[in-house]
Amino acid sequence: MIRRAAIVGGGVIGGGWAARFLLSGIDVHVHDPDPEAERKIGEVLENARRSLPALYDFALPPEGTLTFSESLSDAVKEADWVQESVPERLELKHRIIAEIEEHASQTALIGSSTSGFKPSDLQEGAQHPDRIFVAHPFNPVYLLPLIELVGAETATARASEILSALGMKPLVVRREIDAHIADRFLEAVWREALWLVRDGVATTEEIDDAIRFGFGLRWAQMGLFETYRIAGGEAGMAHFIEQFGPALKWPWTKLIDVPDLTSELVQEIADQSDAQSGHMTIRELERKRDDNLVAIMRALKGRGFAAGALLSNQDQKLKPDYPEDVTKPLKTLERVIPIDWTDYNAHMNESRYGQVFSDAADFVMEMVGADADYIAGGLSYFTVEIVIRFVLETHPGERIHVMTQVLQGEGKKLRLFHEMHAENGDLLATGEQLLIHVSLETRRSCSPADEVRKKIETLAKAHAHLPLPDGARGP
Amino acid sequence: MIRRAAIVGGGVIGGGWAARFLLSGIDVHVHDPDPEAERKIGEVLENARRSLPALYDFALPPEGTLTFSESLSDAVKEADWVQESVPERLELKHRIIAEIEEHASQTALIGSSTSGFKPSDLQEGAQHPDRIFVAHPFNPVYLLPLIELVGAETATARASEILSALGMKPLVVRREIDAHIADRFLEAVWREALWLVRDGVATTEEIDDAIRFGFGLRWAQMGLFETYRIAGGEAGMAHFIEQFGPALKWPWTKLIDVPDLTSELVQEIADQSDAQSGHMTIRELERKRDDNLVAIMRALKGRGFAAGALLSNQDQKLKPDYPEDVTKPLKTLERVIPIDWTDYNAHMNESRYGQVFSDAADFVMEMVGADADYIAGGLSYFTVEIVIRFVLETHPGERIHVMTQVLQGEGKKLRLFHEMHAENGDLLATGEQLLIHVSLETRRSCSPADEVRKKIETLAKAHAHLPLPDGARGP
Repeated sequence: MIRRAAIVGGGVIGGGWAARFLLSGIDVHVHDPDPEAERKIGEVLENARRSLPALYDFALPPEGTLTFSESLSDAVKEADWVQESVPERLELKHRIIAEIEEHASQTALIGSSTSGFKPSDLQEGAQHPDRIFVAHPFNPVYLLPLIELVGAETATARASEILSALGMKPLVVRREIDAHIADRFLEAVWREALWLVRDGVATTEEIDDAIRFGFGLRWAQMGLFETYRIAGGEAGMAHFIEQFGPALKWPWTKLIDVPDLTSELVQEIADQSDAQSGHMTIRELERKRDDNLVAIMRALKGRGFAAGALLSNQDQKLKPDYPEDVTKPLKTLERVIPIDWTDYNAHMNESRYGQVFSDAADFVMEMVGADADYIAGGLSYFTVEIVIRFVLETHPGERIHVMTQVLQGEGKKLRLFHEMHAENGDLLATGEQLLIHVSLETRRSCSPADEVRKKIETLAKAHAHLPLPDGARGP
Repeated sequence: MIRRAAIVGGGVIGGGWAARFLLSGIDVHVHDPDPEAERKIGEVLENARRSLPALYDFALPPEGTLTFSESLSDAVKEADWVQESVPERLELKHRIIAEIEEHASQTALIGSSTSGFKPSDLQEGAQHPDRIFVAHPFNPVYLLPLIELVGAETATARASEILSALGMKPLVVRREIDAHIADRFLEAVWREALWLVRDGVATTEEIDDAIRFGFGLRWAQMGLFETYRIAGGEAGMAHFIEQFGPALKWPWTKLIDVPDLTSELVQEIADQSDAQSGHMTIRELERKRDDNLVAIMRALKGRGFAAGALLSNQDQKLKPDYPEDVTKPLKTLERVIPIDWTDYNAHMNESRYGQVFSDAADFVMEMVGADADYIAGGLSYFTVEIVIRFVLETHPGERIHVMTQVLQGEGKKLRLFHEMHAENGDLLATGEQLLIHVSLETRRSCSPADEVRKKIETLAKAHAHLPLPDGARGP
């Protein structure tokens, strides 16, 4: 893991990188001559703080420190990773990279956010070309996991390790080409879309609808080839290509030409876009996009698929250690309330209090050895009754924690009392939960395995001296 | 709404259409000379039954009847909508359409699932060309909402109305072109992807990752233009095009050429696809895809956005009437358990029982006039305590219903007792829920508006003679 990152060029992309690093506990130094840079990065950070932590089921580490540096040299010295995100002009990138090389440590990684240039373009005239590589992110950088890495193997391997530790999805590109991989697709679609608007076939909104109500929903999870593999059916991928390959030669796309971007066409597109989305400010659109992304990625998390599997992996890294002092109520959960837990009253839906207590009970189960392996072995605990008292409202973005007292732990019975607290300590809700140990084969109650039973009894004994919590019915 | 549909050509696409119609309560007649058609459609239907009903928060109507017809004439006579989904050969489509015209009612709509042909191509030599239109769906047809409609205005307007009633998203295309709208994009991306594999830049899996960990997550919700509108920021869409337009002229895509589909290239792609997804059968992949789609669309439903907003609209149509006889416990909920409600024990997570009872309470609230308008006016009910007893496990795909008894309804207090039942009547769980009427302004308790209070008192009085349910604590 790295301790310090430098961001050179602080627009939407540089700001997104800064937010990823900061919220992962890494100190960030930003250099950007733009007098507006501090405001702009502040806005990106605000968006990131309200969405990124909600992707996970455990709290993120304390934020790193954000520093704005007047000079590039101050920003990059002592940085483990320098990320360049200045405008897409090669001569400007060459100048900035030369300055970074002059002041950064010899071991610092130097990544570029360029969406078009090849690493060999960027490396021209560099002192140590091998450590200069493409690290191409996707907006919003604080939520979308993909980073395309292109460059020398040593640099991209180290960068890949660091990004994976942050929970991102580095994709090391095998061969450098203009625009790497993803932007080649975006480019092809963008060109085709401009033609459709110019020729009056579809408006911007109709094109967006053609994507988001159809194949966009497939691509968010499986991409292109796995989707087509299904379309090919049992006959397989080769059959699919033979069947649909010939259509490639049909004149289905505007292959060769690029539409003239006349001022009339630009205005037509801008007008259509206003008609489609002009009722929302860019800030509102950003938040809708981010809320949607959080909800979609969390939906995939429940399925253990694609971007969702990535979140689950990161949760395993974020999961706190078991408490050392078991003579007091245990801290069994600490997390941020995600947007998909809210309802029409704009607060956390009552059912999600049950989710929080269910997750807290899972933590106790794991502590006593009733973990994923134990469950895979055919034994588990099922809740048979829960009493939830709702004390205060809870809102998305709030960081909450749960303290759990073991009221009873003998034989098949495990009785827990959870108190859910706000960050300031306010009591939000209580849950008194009776769990029964079961065989997953017979789906009936049975005694826990010896090692689990012993640990539960130890825990129950350690808590036996604690007073019965307010409102608890007890064993 | 239509009563009867005919499906001519019963592959994956025809089967998907059949499933959409059947699960919406429409009778379907299928004609396909393939002796395997019945098995194939059966498989599609099985997939549809386990996923489509779970998109909604209310139960779908009883299924229509499925009939396999030996002859095309039997299938299409009396059909209100005939959907042609035979292979993409124009002379075959002409022959089939002529036969349909001969036997179908004069008022029947005749849609074609063609992904490439224009309606004017299909209409050549037809008796009534104006009723023959393109209705181009996307696989899986039983889940993806988009249908591209191309053809004469009267036909597409009628088709649009029918599809909207089914909860789908008809997109009437303004001008006919080859491949309509969405497939032009798919074609452009597919061609580019084949080049990347051929040139050794990326494998099939890397290409899928470049999509699903990046822009695929944006496209599932906003598509292309709304995403770019955000990228343009406050400077607007015209600024974005001016900034990024020039890149269109750079050689970022393989504009002109189509890669030769040599047997080596086909085999290379098939091998890569096996390495990527070969550990799953096509059936397993289909189910993963469908579960992911259900979870993603339901995530968007919580946000009221894109495909999710469509689901909410449909829920409004599916919502049952208020019960007429209020002297007995009220049926307050009937629905299918969606996949995103399950946990590592492969059954419905305990917190979702709370969701079911919360939704059942919402139904009671609406019955007494505490509906969306009332809440928008600043008054609502908050739950202050719930006791849930878990009796039996519940699994995804199960159809459940809730019977609710009003135990107390006076002043600010509303006390409900819910019994959740399986389709066979088995008791799955009970919930005793105390709600308090609140002002959303002060977030404190207050008396309900008079008309709501009166309705609640009437309901409570009507239930006062009912015995206290087993396990209830009562008022």
